[in-house]
Amino acid sequence: MRDVIIWTYDWVPKGPRGFVRDLRLRWACEEAGFPYSVRTVAFDGRETNHLEQQPFGQVPFLSDGGLQIFESGAGLMHLARRSEKLLPRDAEGEAATLQWMFAALNSIEMVSVPWWFLEITGAKDNALTGWMSNRLDQLEKVLGEREWLAADRFTAADLLMTDVLRVGKVRAFGDRPATEAYVTRVTDRPAFQKARADQMAHFAAADETRGTADS
Amino acid sequence: MRDVIIWTYDWVPKGPRGFVRDLRLRWACEEAGFPYSVRTVAFDGRETNHLEQQPFGQVPFLSDGGLQIFESGAGLMHLARRSEKLLPRDAEGEAATLQWMFAALNSIEMVSVPWWFLEITGAKDNALTGWMSNRLDQLEKVLGEREWLAADRFTAADLLMTDVLRVGKVRAFGDRPATEAYVTRVTDRPAFQKARADQMAHFAAADETRGTADS
Repeated sequence: MRDVIIWTYDWVPKGPRGFVRDLRLRWACEEAGFPYSVRTVAFDGRETNHLEQQPFGQVPFLSDGGLQIFESGAGLMHLARRSEKLLPRDAEGEAATLQWMFAALNSIEMVSVPWWFLEITGAKDNALTGWMSNRLDQLEKVLGEREWLAADRFTAADLLMTDVLRVGKVRAFGDRPATEAYVTRVTDRPAFQKARADQMAHFAAADETRGTADS
Repeated sequence: MRDVIIWTYDWVPKGPRGFVRDLRLRWACEEAGFPYSVRTVAFDGRETNHLEQQPFGQVPFLSDGGLQIFESGAGLMHLARRSEKLLPRDAEGEAATLQWMFAALNSIEMVSVPWWFLEITGAKDNALTGWMSNRLDQLEKVLGEREWLAADRFTAADLLMTDVLRVGKVRAFGDRPATEAYVTRVTDRPAFQKARADQMAHFAAADETRGTADS
């Protein structure tokens, strides 16, 4: 089987380590049992140095055979379609999984990332708090009634939703025990643990050549 | 061929008419030549009255045979996979289309909708302006070099990106002639014009039973 290539930065500061979105693709490959390798673009100058591969200067992007795919959601969907472990093959299970992948990106992350952006840029009275709180309450209700988002088992939808939710400040936002238990259950999976450890090791190794003053 | 059913609200105020996201699914059906009908849930009490069908209380959602799908992006992808007019069948064209659909939702709309939310809630010095401006500049560069986002022809990626961009305040954000020409080119399509006119008529018809005082 051909190797998948996951592209990420050569280095990042300590803050985002463990959260850079190449993790979504590493994790998917671990769950599916796909062999993969990791290649890098430079963190310095990232806003313009790889626009040919990613027009918004982001990571990750994916190479698979002749295909080159950016957007972590699109890369994850590509991998999911290659493995029943990530995406059920029956029409109903597949549709439910895809719908919850879009919900993770467009109903939760569309609020949580800008909310978090306002938090770290020091907004007083974060104007997105009510909206975010409402969405997380609605999700709490869903997760109080089922163990997995789709098809009564782990799918790529749980991978993506958990990656959106596990950001510390989002998880700590109010008391939502079903959501907390869900994130713990999903991140306890060996495939997540390995993907996260590998990402941490990847960036830590770069400290040695770069010098630690930057981190 | 079975009819697709697109679910939307029974009525909305005049402001959002022409922009309610059932339009994405109407437009896709018009492009693909799929027969479809429209059914409604009540606008009043929308936050809780259809959580069984849409756990975030949003529209649209889609019924297609035995499948029920929420999230406009997921519904659009479902329709696109049924029609080559929306989604190329070759692996490269398909991957490019899907990646740009995710970019529309997660790289542009993830910034533009919260930016717009802050604008209408009266934020001074909208904290998301720099981020949004940067993303739109990057997109302008792409659209300056090509007519369509993927596969050298109209696809579901153009449908979705255009629907994200055509919101008045987003379009008016700075001077980006390639983006402006792109939105004009795509919204000139007869399928968009019909879908938009049908949505306007749907909500206008509801004024008669509801009384116009609300609008």
